[in-house]
Amino acid sequence: DFMIALENDIKPAFGVSDECFSKYILNGIINFGEPVTRVLADGELVVQQTKLSDRTPLVSLLMEGPTGSGKTALAATLSMKSGFPFVKICSPEDMVGYSESAKCQAIKKIFEDAYKSELSCVVVDDIERLLDYVPIGPRFSNLVLQALLVLLKKIPPKGRKLLIIGTTSQKEVLQQMEMVSTFNTHIHVPALSTGEQLCSVIEDFDCFSAAERATLQKKLSGKRLCIGIKKLLVLLELVRQTEEGFRVPKLLCLMEEEAGLE
Amino acid sequence: DFMIALENDIKPAFGVSDECFSKYILNGIINFGEPVTRVLADGELVVQQTKLSDRTPLVSLLMEGPTGSGKTALAATLSMKSGFPFVKICSPEDMVGYSESAKCQAIKKIFEDAYKSELSCVVVDDIERLLDYVPIGPRFSNLVLQALLVLLKKIPPKGRKLLIIGTTSQKEVLQQMEMVSTFNTHIHVPALSTGEQLCSVIEDFDCFSAAERATLQKKLSGKRLCIGIKKLLVLLELVRQTEEGFRVPKLLCLMEEEAGLE
Amino acid sequence: DFMIALENDIKPAFGVSDECFSKYILNGIINFGEPVTRVLADGELVVQQTKLSDRTPLVSLLMEGPTGSGKTALAATLSMKSGFPFVKICSPEDMVGYSESAKCQAIKKIFEDAYKSELSCVVVDDIERLLDYVPIGPRFSNLVLQALLVLLKKIPPKGRKLLIIGTTSQKEVLQQMEMVSTFNTHIHVPALSTGEQLCSVIEDFDCFSAAERATLQKKLSGKRLCIGIKKLLVLLELVRQTEEGFRVPKLLCLMEEEAGLE
Amino acid sequence: DFMIALENDIKPAFGVSDECFSKYILNGIINFGEPVTRVLADGELVVQQTKLSDRTPLVSLLMEGPTGSGKTALAATLSMKSGFPFVKICSPEDMVGYSESAKCQAIKKIFEDAYKSELSCVVVDDIERLLDYVPIGPRFSNLVLQALLVLLKKIPPKGRKLLIIGTTSQKEVLQQMEMVSTFNTHIHVPALSTGEQLCSVIEDFDCFSAAERATLQKKLSGKRLCIGIKKLLVLLELVRQTEEGFRVPKLLCLMEEEAGLE
Amino acid sequence: DFMIALENDIKPAFGVSDECFSKYILNGIINFGEPVTRVLADGELVVQQTKLSDRTPLVSLLMEGPTGSGKTALAATLSMKSGFPFVKICSPEDMVGYSESAKCQAIKKIFEDAYKSELSCVVVDDIERLLDYVPIGPRFSNLVLQALLVLLKKIPPKGRKLLIIGTTSQKEVLQQMEMVSTFNTHIHVPALSTGEQLCSVIEDFDCFSAAERATLQKKLSGKRLCIGIKKLLVLLELVRQTEEGFRVPKLLCLMEEEAGLE
Amino acid sequence: DFMIALENDIKPAFGVSDECFSKYILNGIINFGEPVTRVLADGELVVQQTKLSDRTPLVSLLMEGPTGSGKTALAATLSMKSGFPFVKICSPEDMVGYSESAKCQAIKKIFEDAYKSELSCVVVDDIERLLDYVPIGPRFSNLVLQALLVLLKKIPPKGRKLLIIGTTSQKEVLQQMEMVSTFNTHIHVPALSTGEQLCSVIEDFDCFSAAERATLQKKLSGKRLCIGIKKLLVLLELVRQTEEGFRVPKLLCLMEEEAGLE
Ligand SMILES: Nc1ncnc2c1ncn2[C@@H]1O[C@H](COP(=O)(O)OP(=O)(O)OP(=O)(O)O)[C@@H](O)[C@H]1O
Ligand SMILES: Nc1ncnc2c1ncn2[C@@H]1O[C@H](COP(=O)(O)OP(=O)(O)OP(=O)(O)O)[C@@H](O)[C@H]1O
Ligand SMILES: Nc1ncnc2c1ncn2[C@@H]1O[C@H](COP(=O)(O)OP(=O)(O)OP(=O)(O)O)[C@@H](O)[C@H]1O
Ligand SMILES: Nc1ncnc2c1ncn2[C@@H]1O[C@H](COP(=O)(O)OP(=O)(O)OP(=O)(O)O)[C@@H](O)[C@H]1O
Ligand SMILES: Nc1ncnc2c1ncn2[C@@H]1O[C@H](COP(=O)(O)OP(=O)(O)OP(=O)(O)O)[C@@H](O)[C@H]1O
Ligand SMILES: Nc1ncnc2c1ncn2[C@@H]1O[C@H](COP(=O)(O)OP(=O)(O)OP(=O)(O)O)[C@@H](O)[C@H]1O
Ligand SMILES: [Mg+2]
Ligand SMILES: [Mg+2]
Ligand SMILES: [Mg+2]
Ligand SMILES: [Mg+2]
Ligand SMILES: [Mg+2]
Ligand SMILES: [Mg+2]
Repeated sequence: DFMIALENDIKPAFGVSDECFSKYILNGIINFGEPVTRVLADGELVVQQTKLSDRTPLVSLLMEGPTGSGKTALAATLSMKSGFPFVKICSPEDMVGYSESAKCQAIKKIFEDAYKSELSCVVVDDIERLLDYVPIGPRFSNLVLQALLVLLKKIPPKGRKLLIIGTTSQKEVLQQMEMVSTFNTHIHVPALSTGEQLCSVIEDFDCFSAAERATLQKKLSGKRLCIGIKKLLVLLELVRQTEEGFRVPKLLCLMEEEAGLE
Repeated sequence: DFMIALENDIKPAFGVSDECFSKYILNGIINFGEPVTRVLADGELVVQQTKLSDRTPLVSLLMEGPTGSGKTALAATLSMKSGFPFVKICSPEDMVGYSESAKCQAIKKIFEDAYKSELSCVVVDDIERLLDYVPIGPRFSNLVLQALLVLLKKIPPKGRKLLIIGTTSQKEVLQQMEMVSTFNTHIHVPALSTGEQLCSVIEDFDCFSAAERATLQKKLSGKRLCIGIKKLLVLLELVRQTEEGFRVPKLLCLMEEEAGLE
Repeated sequence: DFMIALENDIKPAFGVSDECFSKYILNGIINFGEPVTRVLADGELVVQQTKLSDRTPLVSLLMEGPTGSGKTALAATLSMKSGFPFVKICSPEDMVGYSESAKCQAIKKIFEDAYKSELSCVVVDDIERLLDYVPIGPRFSNLVLQALLVLLKKIPPKGRKLLIIGTTSQKEVLQQMEMVSTFNTHIHVPALSTGEQLCSVIEDFDCFSAAERATLQKKLSGKRLCIGIKKLLVLLELVRQTEEGFRVPKLLCLMEEEAGLE
Repeated sequence: DFMIALENDIKPAFGVSDECFSKYILNGIINFGEPVTRVLADGELVVQQTKLSDRTPLVSLLMEGPTGSGKTALAATLSMKSGFPFVKICSPEDMVGYSESAKCQAIKKIFEDAYKSELSCVVVDDIERLLDYVPIGPRFSNLVLQALLVLLKKIPPKGRKLLIIGTTSQKEVLQQMEMVSTFNTHIHVPALSTGEQLCSVIEDFDCFSAAERATLQKKLSGKRLCIGIKKLLVLLELVRQTEEGFRVPKLLCLMEEEAGLE
Repeated sequence: DFMIALENDIKPAFGVSDECFSKYILNGIINFGEPVTRVLADGELVVQQTKLSDRTPLVSLLMEGPTGSGKTALAATLSMKSGFPFVKICSPEDMVGYSESAKCQAIKKIFEDAYKSELSCVVVDDIERLLDYVPIGPRFSNLVLQALLVLLKKIPPKGRKLLIIGTTSQKEVLQQMEMVSTFNTHIHVPALSTGEQLCSVIEDFDCFSAAERATLQKKLSGKRLCIGIKKLLVLLELVRQTEEGFRVPKLLCLMEEEAGLE
Repeated sequence: DFMIALENDIKPAFGVSDECFSKYILNGIINFGEPVTRVLADGELVVQQTKLSDRTPLVSLLMEGPTGSGKTALAATLSMKSGFPFVKICSPEDMVGYSESAKCQAIKKIFEDAYKSELSCVVVDDIERLLDYVPIGPRFSNLVLQALLVLLKKIPPKGRKLLIIGTTSQKEVLQQMEMVSTFNTHIHVPALSTGEQLCSVIEDFDCFSAAERATLQKKLSGKRLCIGIKKLLVLLELVRQTEEGFRVPKLLCLMEEEAGLE
């Protein structure tokens, strides 16, 4: 059913039980092209592998890519759609102001809960924030780092299976910490890079007229750019606030400033 | 009504409920020229966006500029005039001598209160002070930094909207901390840079005679200088203490020493 | 009986008392060639020496090699097969989120328990994790390091004998910490390095047909590669998920990407 | 009345309420020349400004100069003579062995007391000591530094006025800490630098005969030297202990050794 | 009686009261040549000096040499044979996992007990371990270091005499810490360096036949090598485990690998 | 009476009340020449100044010189002979294993006790040890340093006088810490540097015959050497243990090795 989902976009229509995922996928998953298809397909395979293999009761997947490229939304989507009986997002948002050791305990608790279910998925979101990482120094919580390094290798109890999905925009840092190689697999989540992908997102938006969309398509086709889906959505929302008629030039101007459109 | 306000200056005439803002806008907002108009207009747009957009329930704005350029007063003004039901200034002044973790809790509390209102504005004032930043080392509170980095990305609960306005005179430092890119928008708040702007402030002051003002206008027009509005007001106050007749040369002398007037 | 075991592979068939070792030897010990034979033989000698010598009541052995080369599984196997009345694995997995001093106490407790038995074996697994080591800084727990350095030299009480088996993938770091020279002996546990060794593992796997195995043997024989047994097993499991017929090219492709097969 | 005071020296004759200031002005203020006159005049202006201006309820003055140049005595004098209802010296002498946070609380308490009076003066003495500063490292209390940086900018409550006088012999260090620019004004307190200034102090001393003073005047006039008033007073006291007749050469000798007199 | 002891080896035959020393001299003291004779003679002189001199109630001796050269066994021997009423070994083995301050208190306690006896000897064993020293950083416990630096200079109470014997394999580090110069005397404890010394140890061992010993003597005489007595004993024990007939080549091979025998 | 004492040596003959000083002057003060005379005379002057001057109620003296040059014994002597009603030695020996803050409190307590007496003397012995100083890092207790820096400047209460005598062998370090300039006066305590001074000490010793002393005088006169009195006394004591007849060559040999005698 993933493949079906990919043909259309995944709309943010959550049931009660999905409530807590909704804020991570605020604007749904817009399928703006091959990268999205590929990320979801690769992720889906890892989900299946966890479900089916007996020899690998622990599977771990790192989703890495630039700021705002949609890592969290995609990880949340994968875990939510997995249908596993236990799915949990371990997010720094729930640990604001926690001491290193409180953070550690909270993380450990999530994994211990996961070990209790036969089939579990834990999303370890925004690893650099969980680690309190800052490039000045650099500084980070070694207590949390060591806990994660161990939990990423710890086989669940007999008869239990666990999928760990991590997200980060600091792959190089995690590599220095020898965390990247501790994950079994990696998926790169890229920013939008072509005019076609951008048009694809615009199609999905109700704020441009058909004529405007045609103009944009002509102007953008074949062009290179670089912008994360998250920032793009904020800018489109900004464009929407401007008066009709001014929107196309405004968008192109913003894309030049913020996305390096030539 | 912002635009109206801009035509005249914003005088510090606070009602009871505005009491707590008054100390941040001690001498009102003197509209000394284009930079002030622009900052207030741009800021106002961000306020409107927060109010109107449904897809971006979290909007964040960084006001950065040199020491004493009026960042705090302008942020306080924007938030106060927004008319949002919940407006709060998160200021280091209320956290003197707090431990890192007490600071964190205080900040977190303000955001949690904000999440309870449908439409909120939180001014995070003087971020380098909240972070206990000092260039020697450099040293800063990573606990507070991480809390801010997370709070700046955390979507408010369903149906709630939040505008975060940060102020800082240490943009480069925040950039290294990857905090600048976490804000959605930035507004630069410059110091006064021309003789015309200086004259504009002087017009607003009751301490020079019409003749003196004319002399100053002649002497200053076309000149470059560099001084924050905050320091300028202190120096004008000093000039006022000197005897009549000596004020014009005293002011010019001070501007040469302290504002680099040629 | 070790030598017999070596002729066949050691299958993971644990009794009740071996339960706790099973997770460390999840996929048994596949005897893929000379390195495995040698490691087990050398290890067995050290076990015998502990049992028989009177002048050396304390024997210590460091098993070092690249990530995933099978150190933990081999150490667990050696200790389990030793037949010593007291055998314990001191693993970071049981100390997630422990403070430095809690870690120390836990380690000390294991040794104190070992001293109570006439003949004991303690596996100190993943020493870099016990030390909370991270190359950035570098940082590590000096409290744990010092405890280990002392325990590695401390003669057990009169009439007691102790074998300590350490494992690490950070030999150079332990050398700088002067821990390597504190061990009596070292055994290098290498990754798989030849096509023959790889074929040996494949023989052991039920996922390829005889024809496929023959093809692989031809393609791989005489080739160099480099992959730890742990990662290899994950990849083979991945290959198993792909459709029949596609498995051989898939494996070869993976080996090129991940094991440097030419 | 300051100007009158300047004509004569300020003798240390304290009433009961001045008791606590006496130890900071142990040997009065000897008016040895222009620098003393200037420092007191400039300081007096700042005191008047605090009293009279309505727009600047917070005035801050940094008195900086070499070790022993008389900064503390002068700051104590200014504050004592201000006649403000609340005057307090915040001195490291009252915080020996305090923890960083106890120091912070003590400082904060003084400011909070000051805010309660309509017109207050707080002397923040020996800032480098309050900061526990040492050039090796360098090390200092960031907690105290941040508290001071905030208190130096914090507007007192409506209707209250506050003058803050800081003293330091480490101007460059405070500059790096961005504290110097946080003060509104600075006054430089120099060491004695001429033979004439030295003679001026000697005149004030009862230990030389008129003939000796004449000799000294001749020998010293036109000469350069460099010595803080504090150290000079200790040396004069030492000279006094030597036998009559030997005092003039002894003094000259000491001045050569310790004050660089040519 | 030391000199008599030197003629024969000191066999590990301990009475009840010597129980606690036995583990430090597990394999006795084998007199393999001049270095052993000299160390024991020099040590004995220091013991006598403590006993006899009235002007030096505090004598301190540092025994330093490479890892495993026998420092601890020799220090234990000297102290045990001194016949002093109070003899104590202050060893890191009894302080595993202690906090810095607990370590300090334990050390202090031993010295305070020693001060209560008229004639005492305290062996401060493995000083680098007591200091939690690690070359990475470097890191060490300054609390323990400072305690030792003071205790090494502190004169015992009137009428009491104290001999302190320290051991270390990190002389250069202790020199940087200014601890070496705090000791009154130093004795260097070398590793074995000649074939003759090695033969001397072999003579003492019951595992080679007379013929084998003759062969070894011929092969080894005049050769240079470098190995600590501690490691040598472990290797000889290993050789003993191999079959008769293979022992001589095995030993020579090991000596080439581990002792640099040419 | 100091000058009388200087003609003879000061023998260690303490009354009951002097008990606690005796351990600091274990072997009396041997007047081996000009340096001893000068140090005692200069020190005595400082003592007199404290007693007599009214304008300098706080006098501070730093005695600095190489390890073992006799600083502590001389400071103890000066303070003991001062006849001041309150005399106290603040020594690291009484603070073994104290935390930084316990050390601070202990030091503060001594000063507070001193302030209660009209005329007091506090010896702050071995300042580098009170500061827990170690050159690696360097590391030291900033808490203790700051406490000392403040106490060295703090005027005692009205009507009280205080003499502070510090000792150190780390003048350069204290200079970097800006502590040297905080002392009013400094006295250098040198090691023995001439053969004549050495002979002077030997004269004082009962262990050489008249003939031996004559030989030594001839051999040593005009020679340069460098040895602290403390170490010299230990070596002389060692020489005394050797057999008669061998003592002169033994002494000369030791002086060559340890004192650089040519
Ligand atoms: N194809 C898509 N992939 C991912 N997110 C998408 C996609 N289409 C729309 N979105 C929306 O874009 C936003 C992506 O934000 P998200 O927080 O997941 O980015 P991120 O990479 O985790 O950011 P950060 O680097 O700040 O952690 C979400 O609101 C999501 O609903
Ligand atoms: N156009 C203006 N913009 C901002 N402030 C103004 C303006 N006109 C007058 N003011 C007054 O100038 C002062 C500006 O001080 P403010 O504390 O806001 O500066 P700041 O940039 O925040 O300083 P700092 O860098 O120290 O935080 C206030 O008293 C405000 O009332
Ligand atoms: N010959 C073998 N040697 C070791 N392990 C083997 C062998 N054959 C199969 N295995 C299996 O391979 C896995 C080896 O993983 P193990 O955790 O022991 O590796 P490791 O070197 O300790 O990894 P790490 O470096 O992450 O600590 C185990 O599941 C084990 O059952
Ligand atoms: N003109 C003068 N200015 C200042 N102090 C004077 C003057 N004349 C005499 N004094 C006396 O000199 C001493 C100055 O010492 P004070 O402690 O004020 O110096 P300081 O600069 O604060 O020293 P430090 O740098 O150590 O803090 C006081 O005892 C004061 O009474
Ligand atoms: N001549 C000898 N000198 C010292 N030890 C000897 C001698 N002959 C035999 N031995 C034995 O050798 C061993 C020496 O080990 P010991 O622990 O004293 O070495 P060490 O130098 O203290 O080691 P480390 O550097 O690890 O602290 C002891 O078991 C001792 O009984
Ligand atoms: N002229 C002398 N001056 C000082 N000490 C002397 C003199 N003559 C004999 N002594 C003796 O020499 C010893 C000097 O040791 P002391 O501890 O004072 O030296 P120190 O310089 O303080 O050493 P350290 O640098 O280790 O602190 C004392 O035992 C003292 O009695
Ligand atoms: Mg994210
Ligand atoms: Mg501000
Ligand atoms: Mg392992
Ligand atoms: Mg001062
Ligand atoms: Mg030892
Ligand atoms: Mg001393």
